[in-house]
Amino acid sequence: MERILQKQWEEKDKKLYKAVIFKDFQEAFLFMIRVAFLAEKNNHHPKWTNEWNKVEIWLYTHDAGDVVTEKDRNLAKEIDKLLEVEIR
Amino acid sequence: MERILQKQWEEKDKKLYKAVIFKDFQEAFLFMIRVAFLAEKNNHHPKWTNEWNKVEIWLYTHDAGDVVTEKDRNLAKEIDKLLEVEIR
Repeated sequence: MERILQKQWEEKDKKLYKAVIFKDFQEAFLFMIRVAFLAEKNNHHPKWTNEWNKVEIWLYTHDAGDVVTEKDRNLAKEIDKLLEVEIR
Repeated sequence: MERILQKQWEEKDKKLYKAVIFKDFQEAFLFMIRVAFLAEKNNHHPKWTNEWNKVEIWLYTHDAGDVVTEKDRNLAKEIDKLLEVEIR
């Protein structure tokens, strides 16, 4: 995946938030497919928005009262690993 | 795809909007994969949000000044066909 821009996770409104910009839609969606498998493996799923080459992710735990928990921090780390190994 | 709830497209804030609820995340994401191929075929892409079993879609045309155009109406129809043929 060709990633153009990635900011660190930030915690806001009781959610972990990250935005990643890719080269185009296919690269962005390829990333989403990989995150989808991660989410299923962890049985923990993001709220996310995609628009063309941009993916925005919000992580929080509904069952814990919509706050950030270890589940979110773990998924955030796994997503970061995915972005790391995919840098060209 | 097992679809639980689908409302008609509505036009609001100069965008076509639809929400679809599926059985679970996998069903929702399967739908998104199919829409991704449609979008690439049409060279016209949605803004969309997914959260677990819910997919929300906004269609509008950036190049036309962020309004609804024929491109959006066509993509909306194709997405609807996808949902039709997939009903179990």
